[in-house]
Amino acid sequence: MQTMKPGLFITVEGTEGVGKTSNMNFIRETLEARGIEVVCTREPGGTPLAEELRELLLSNREEKVDETAELLMMFAARAQHLQSLIIPSLMRGAWVLCDRFTDATYAYQGAGRGLSMQTIAQLESIVQGQLQPDATFILDVDVRLGLERASKRSEADRFESEHIEFFERIRACYLSRAEQQPKRYFVINAGQTLDKVQQDIHSQLKLLLP
Amino acid sequence: MQTMKPGLFITVEGTEGVGKTSNMNFIRETLEARGIEVVCTREPGGTPLAEELRELLLSNREEKVDETAELLMMFAARAQHLQSLIIPSLMRGAWVLCDRFTDATYAYQGAGRGLSMQTIAQLESIVQGQLQPDATFILDVDVRLGLERASKRSEADRFESEHIEFFERIRACYLSRAEQQPKRYFVINAGQTLDKVQQDIHSQLKLLLP
Repeated sequence: MQTMKPGLFITVEGTEGVGKTSNMNFIRETLEARGIEVVCTREPGGTPLAEELRELLLSNREEKVDETAELLMMFAARAQHLQSLIIPSLMRGAWVLCDRFTDATYAYQGAGRGLSMQTIAQLESIVQGQLQPDATFILDVDVRLGLERASKRSEADRFESEHIEFFERIRACYLSRAEQQPKRYFVINAGQTLDKVQQDIHSQLKLLLP
Repeated sequence: MQTMKPGLFITVEGTEGVGKTSNMNFIRETLEARGIEVVCTREPGGTPLAEELRELLLSNREEKVDETAELLMMFAARAQHLQSLIIPSLMRGAWVLCDRFTDATYAYQGAGRGLSMQTIAQLESIVQGQLQPDATFILDVDVRLGLERASKRSEADRFESEHIEFFERIRACYLSRAEQQPKRYFVINAGQTLDKVQQDIHSQLKLLLP
């Protein structure tokens, strides 16, 4: 898959309040200014069925949600997203810019909730085969600062109401994955001013441009 | 799990129109007459979240549903069903009587739709560990006869509108699984009169009673 597709698959990752939305807009505008068609999407979600799964996943409910069920729903949404939006877009030459992907599953469900990393890897292989993002921007910020920013913005959903230690484990997982594959990951210090963050993103983005 | 639980886990399988509903009622009544608490449930479904997943799975939609996404949604519903209803019921000594379970996934998604049996086995192991039904009744009937019966009863849903060959593969898969594990499976000739079918079920059921 990876070698055949003409478009690039870029994902943006990070804990709460790192500024994913504004920086994704910045990436999209930068690419579009170069004449690249950009498909902006998000996980979980990106197609009608995957968005319905997202709603089931994020809604507060009385029923205790089994962690394996949650994980399988994530990957179900991902399979649908890949087959009906991401892969077809890449194949026709568009670039796909996705708000979170499988790194978030390793970080949130694996490191955060303690689900088996081996199970996640099995599901990744079932759903993605060899397909991986071509580049992943990790917007990295001190967890307390990020949560402070996020709490000003919106009501806490089920994931955001978790505790600080949970987000510390998530952050550590992202950084450790970046360390293991420095070619694919760009770690951006998102604690800086937005201008400086975007300068850093821009200089990494230039490396990907044709 | 299997050795610790005081209740028995019984599943009922079969293609369309084999009379699952009336025969499940018969099994329930027979067990209750012996003073056994019976929890009747179905797959996909059995809990609020799993029923919501069932609705997503069975609804007709414009979007083409990816087969791997469908499979993962099935197993997500199953994980939830097991952890929030089936296992707790068995642990308190109730018997669980379930309309379809993982045999249906091997039969419908595997043999029917041609999804990888190995992938199904991986997901079965992730979701169930070593847990398997204690007994599975396969209500077996000639495919054309079954579809004829089913079409009189209700409007065809997405699964029922598939073609004859599809159901032939499903039936063959059920029979082959039964052949491989004759101790767990009871194949019942559901082409007989209801009285005769229930006599056959009853004589197998007696073997399970305390």
